[in-house]
Amino acid sequence: MSATVPLGQYLFRRIKDLGTEHILGVPGDFNLTLLDEIYNVPGLRWVGCCNELNAAYAADGYARIKGSPAVLVTTYAVGELSAMNGVAGAYAEHAGMIHIVGMPARMLQKARAMLHHTMEPNMDPAVYIRMAAPIRKTYAYLMDDKTMAEEIDRVIVACVQSRLPAYIYVPADVVSVPLDAKRLDTPLDTAVRNSNSGIEDHIISLVLSEIEKASHPVILADVLTIRHGGLELTRKLAEITQFPSYSTPLSKGIIDENAPYYNGVYNGKVSFPGVAEGVESSDLVLNLGPLLSDSNTGGFTRTIRDENLIYLGHAYCQVKGEKFDGVHFLPILKRIVGELESQSQNYNVPRPQQKPRLEPPVLSKASSGEIRQSYIWQRLGRFFKENDIILTESGTAQFGAPDATFPPNAKYITQIFWSSIGYTVGACLGALVAAKELRHPGRVILIVGEGSLQMTVQEIGTYIRYGFKPIIFVVNNKGYSIERAIHGPEQEYNDVSLIWDYQKMLEFFGARQDKGGRAKSQAAKTIEELEAVLNDEDFGNGDSIQLCEIHMDKFDYPWRLSTQVDITRERMKKATSSSS
Amino acid sequence: MSATVPLGQYLFRRIKDLGTEHILGVPGDFNLTLLDEIYNVPGLRWVGCCNELNAAYAADGYARIKGSPAVLVTTYAVGELSAMNGVAGAYAEHAGMIHIVGMPARMLQKARAMLHHTMEPNMDPAVYIRMAAPIRKTYAYLMDDKTMAEEIDRVIVACVQSRLPAYIYVPADVVSVPLDAKRLDTPLDTAVRNSNSGIEDHIISLVLSEIEKASHPVILADVLTIRHGGLELTRKLAEITQFPSYSTPLSKGIIDENAPYYNGVYNGKVSFPGVAEGVESSDLVLNLGPLLSDSNTGGFTRTIRDENLIYLGHAYCQVKGEKFDGVHFLPILKRIVGELESQSQNYNVPRPQQKPRLEPPVLSKASSGEIRQSYIWQRLGRFFKENDIILTESGTAQFGAPDATFPPNAKYITQIFWSSIGYTVGACLGALVAAKELRHPGRVILIVGEGSLQMTVQEIGTYIRYGFKPIIFVVNNKGYSIERAIHGPEQEYNDVSLIWDYQKMLEFFGARQDKGGRAKSQAAKTIEELEAVLNDEDFGNGDSIQLCEIHMDKFDYPWRLSTQVDITRERMKKATSSSS
Repeated sequence: MSATVPLGQYLFRRIKDLGTEHILGVPGDFNLTLLDEIYNVPGLRWVGCCNELNAAYAADGYARIKGSPAVLVTTYAVGELSAMNGVAGAYAEHAGMIHIVGMPARMLQKARAMLHHTMEPNMDPAVYIRMAAPIRKTYAYLMDDKTMAEEIDRVIVACVQSRLPAYIYVPADVVSVPLDAKRLDTPLDTAVRNSNSGIEDHIISLVLSEIEKASHPVILADVLTIRHGGLELTRKLAEITQFPSYSTPLSKGIIDENAPYYNGVYNGKVSFPGVAEGVESSDLVLNLGPLLSDSNTGGFTRTIRDENLIYLGHAYCQVKGEKFDGVHFLPILKRIVGELESQSQNYNVPRPQQKPRLEPPVLSKASSGEIRQSYIWQRLGRFFKENDIILTESGTAQFGAPDATFPPNAKYITQIFWSSIGYTVGACLGALVAAKELRHPGRVILIVGEGSLQMTVQEIGTYIRYGFKPIIFVVNNKGYSIERAIHGPEQEYNDVSLIWDYQKMLEFFGARQDKGGRAKSQAAKTIEELEAVLNDEDFGNGDSIQLCEIHMDKFDYPWRLSTQVDITRERMKKATSSSS
Repeated sequence: MSATVPLGQYLFRRIKDLGTEHILGVPGDFNLTLLDEIYNVPGLRWVGCCNELNAAYAADGYARIKGSPAVLVTTYAVGELSAMNGVAGAYAEHAGMIHIVGMPARMLQKARAMLHHTMEPNMDPAVYIRMAAPIRKTYAYLMDDKTMAEEIDRVIVACVQSRLPAYIYVPADVVSVPLDAKRLDTPLDTAVRNSNSGIEDHIISLVLSEIEKASHPVILADVLTIRHGGLELTRKLAEITQFPSYSTPLSKGIIDENAPYYNGVYNGKVSFPGVAEGVESSDLVLNLGPLLSDSNTGGFTRTIRDENLIYLGHAYCQVKGEKFDGVHFLPILKRIVGELESQSQNYNVPRPQQKPRLEPPVLSKASSGEIRQSYIWQRLGRFFKENDIILTESGTAQFGAPDATFPPNAKYITQIFWSSIGYTVGACLGALVAAKELRHPGRVILIVGEGSLQMTVQEIGTYIRYGFKPIIFVVNNKGYSIERAIHGPEQEYNDVSLIWDYQKMLEFFGARQDKGGRAKSQAAKTIEELEAVLNDEDFGNGDSIQLCEIHMDKFDYPWRLSTQVDITRERMKKATSSSS
C-alpha cells in the first residue's frame, strides 16, 4: 500500500471525512489539477456554479443547513475576489466554509511573472491573500512541503470550531506533493471544548441555580446557537423545561412554533404585541447564541437588563452581569440540557406566562382581492409543511416572514445582518445540495423579490442543471421596495427593469414545460389567483421545480420594515439634534 | 446666489465637468441620499445595473470607450466588496474609474454600531477601505468637513491622470455638508505633464535622432497607449511615418488594419507568419504603451533586443537601453507627432518591409459545413463595419479575434491580461453608454462564449431596459473550452449547463419579438446558416437588439490558444526539469 497521498487528494479526503459530500465552486486554470482530485475521493462530487459570488452564497447556504463546513473552490484573483462579498457574509453570520483558492505554481509566483490575473506594481501573488484578511478566521498558504499536511489540518479544525470561513491557498504544483497517508487514519478532532473546566463548572452551577430561583424564566434562542451546532440542544431545552420560548428574526424556526411554549419572534419594539413584554418582564432570560445587530434587535430596541440575563455566546458567557471571556456556550448548553434532563423533577417548572397574541390586528384576514404584505406571510406560513427548508431574501420577504407561523422542524435561512441582496438565490443552491446529503424529505422553498433575483438569477439555471426541485416565489413589487421604505420611494434609482418576463425564466434556464416536464410557471395578482396556485397539487408536491410570481404593490411594505425604519429615523433625529 | 453647494452635488458637478454624463451602479441604503444629487446636476443620468460586479465591468467598459473616467456608485460593504474583482481588472488594465461608496453616517461609524453590513470583531467601518488598498491609485475617506472639497478634487485628478481606479468614501450624513461653490468655477487641471522638461526634451531628441538613423523602423502600438489617451496620436504617427505598424492582442484596432502600413498583431511566437520576424528584425521598434503580460506576448516569447527598442510607457521611458524613470509617454508622443508632422520632409521615410501574409494557411477557406475556429473569425471580420465597437470575451473569442481583419476606426475591448470571464457582458453595457455619449454612429458588437455569458447574463436585461441595441454573438461551444485546452478536456468541471435556451434569452429579459419588435434571436450550426443570419438586414443594421447563437465544437480551439498553451507547457516542463 502506498505510504503517501498527493496533497490534493489528502485535502479532499479530510473534507470528505467531515461529512461533506459536495464541493461548490467555479473552475479556473489555476485550480484544474486540484479539481481532478475530487474524482479520486469516493463519495465526493463537484457542483459547478455560474459565478463565484453565487458559489460563495451557495457554500454559505450549504453550511447553514448541513452543519458540516461547506467547501468553496475558486481560482486565483478573479475567482477569489468575485467571491469576497459572499465569504464576508458567511463571516458576519458564522456560516463556516473552507475556501480553497488555486494559485499559480510556486516557481511562477517566485518569479513574479506577469501572468494573467496578476497586478502591478510588483506582480505580488500574495496581494489577494492580504485583501481577504478581515473575512476569515485563518488561512494556509501552502508554499512549504514540510508543513503542508499540518497546515491543512489546522485550518480545517479552526473552520469547524469557529464556524467562520478559512482559506487554503494551493499553488498548482503543490497538488501533487506527496503527503504521509498515515495521517488520514486519525480523524481530525474538531470538538469545541472550553479549556478551563473549572470556569465551565462554575457557569453551569450558576445557571442551574438561577433557573431554580427564577419565577418567570424564558428562553430567547438566537441564530448563533444554530450556526454553532446548538439547534437540537435548544429544541430539547425548550421541550424539557417548557419555558416560554422566543426566537429572533434570524433564528426563526429554532423553536417549534406549534408547541405550547412557543411565544413568538422577539425583536425589541418590532415584535407582535405582548412579545417584548414577555421577554423584558422575565426575571431570567436564557439568551442563547445572540447576534445583536440592528435588524435582529428591532433597531437596537431590545431591552433586557443585565440582572435578568444569562448570555451564552460563542465568544463569552455572562451570568447576571458576571462575564466569562473566551467561554463557548456549546459545551455548557450540552451539560445544562443533560443536567435538566436527568433531574427534571428537582427543579421548579415555572408557569408559562400569558401567551402573546400571535396574530395582531395589523395582519389582514382578507380572502379576496389584491395581495398585501399584511396578508401574504401568514398565508405562506400555512403553505409550509413540516421539515421544509425556507429561504427569505433580504428586503420585504425577510421583514415579512416573521409574520408567518412555521411548521415543526422548519429550517430557515435569511441574512438580515449581512443583508446582501441576491444572497438567497445562491444560498438556495447550497440548501438544495445539503438537503440531498441529509436525505432531507422536506421541500426547499425560496422567496425572493424580483430586484434581488436580478442580482443572481443565473443560479436558477444551476438548480435546473442538477435536477433540483425547489418551489420559488418571486415577489414582484417593481423595484427595491425595502429602499423605497428607507428613502426616495419614487426615485428612479429604486427602480429595476420591469420588463423581465419571469414566466419565461424556468424555460430559458432549461426546465421544459413541454415534453412531459411538469415544471410550472404561474402568476398571481389576487388572493384568489394565489389560492389556485397554492392548491395546485403539482405546485406543492415538490416533484418538479415550480415558480409562482406574486405581484404586489411597490409601496406596500411589511409593518416590521416600516416600524424599524421609523425607529431608526427617530433615533438619528435625536442623535443629530443632541449633537448639534 | 448661494455661496455653498452640498457635497453630493459638488462631487457630481466635478464629474460632469470631466465630460462624464452617466453614473453606473447599484443603490443601497447607505448611498440613497447621495444618488438624489445626481438629479440636481443637469445632463447627468443614472444607469442602474443588476449587480455590482457587472456595474464595475460596465464602468471599465465605459472608460475604455469614452476616455473620461467612469463613475461607479456602490453601497457600503456588500456593494463595494461585490465590485472588487471588476475594479481590480480596471486597475490591472488601466481603465480608470471613480468608485464612490456610500457609508453609514459618521456618528454611527464612530459608535461602532452593529449595523447591517458590518463585521466582528469590532465593527470597524474602515475595514473594507483597507481591503481595497491594492486595487486603487488613491482614495478619499470623507470624515472631516474641512478637507472634503480638496480631497474630492485630489482623487478625481489622480484618477484621470493615472487611468487607475480611485475611491471616494461618502458617509451618508456628509452628502449635505456645504462646500464652497466658488471652487467649481475653476475646472480641475487633469493634464498629464512630466515635471522635468529637460529630460523630456532629451528623450524627444533621442527618439527623433534614432528615427532618422534607423533603416527599418516599425511601430508597435500596445494597449496602454489607448488607455492613457494616445489612440489618435498613434494613428497619426503611423499615418505620417507610414512605418510598418503592429498592434498586440490587447491593442488590436489601434492601427487601421486596411492601411498599407498595417502589418498585423505581434504576439511573439503566437503571431501570423512573418509578423514576429518583421518586428524582431527591425533596428528600431517604437513600442508605445506596452503591457507585457503572458497572453499579450505570446506566452513571454516576445523577443525585442534593448538596443533596437524605444519603450514609451506610462511609468518610464527607455531609449536603446537608457531608462528614464517616472517619465510618462503621453506628452512625449504628442511632441514627437508634432515634430514629425511639421518637418515631414526632413526625415527619411524608410521603405516598408515586406508585408507578412495576413491569412496564413492555418485559416480555413471553407464555404459550407460546420463552423470552425479556423473559419469564424475572418468571417466575422468581414461582418464588422467602420466605427464598430467590438468586444470579445476571455476565452476562445479573445484568442480567435486576432485572426479577423478589423475595419477602420474599430474600437476594441478585450481583457486578456486580467482575464475575468463574464467581463464583456458588463463591459458591453458600459460601451453602449459611452457610445451614446459620444453620439457614436457605429454598432456595438459583443462576442461571448456561453460559459462566460452564464456568469453575468442578467446585464443583457439592462441593455434591453435602457433600449440599447447591441448585436450579440453567443459562441455556444458547450463549456469552458479555454480550460479544456489547458487541462482536463473531458473533465466534468469544464462543463456548464447545456440546457439553457439562448433563443429565449432576449424574450426573458423583455425584448419582444412580437408586437412589432424586431429583436431577433437566431442560431447557426453551419456556415450556410451563419451566412443567412449575417446577411439578414435586420440583424446587421443596428436598429434593434439581435442575437446569433453560433454552435461550435467543444474541443475546437483557436490556433493561437493551442499554440500558447503548448509554449507554456514546454516552458513549465523545462523549468521543472532544470530545478529538480
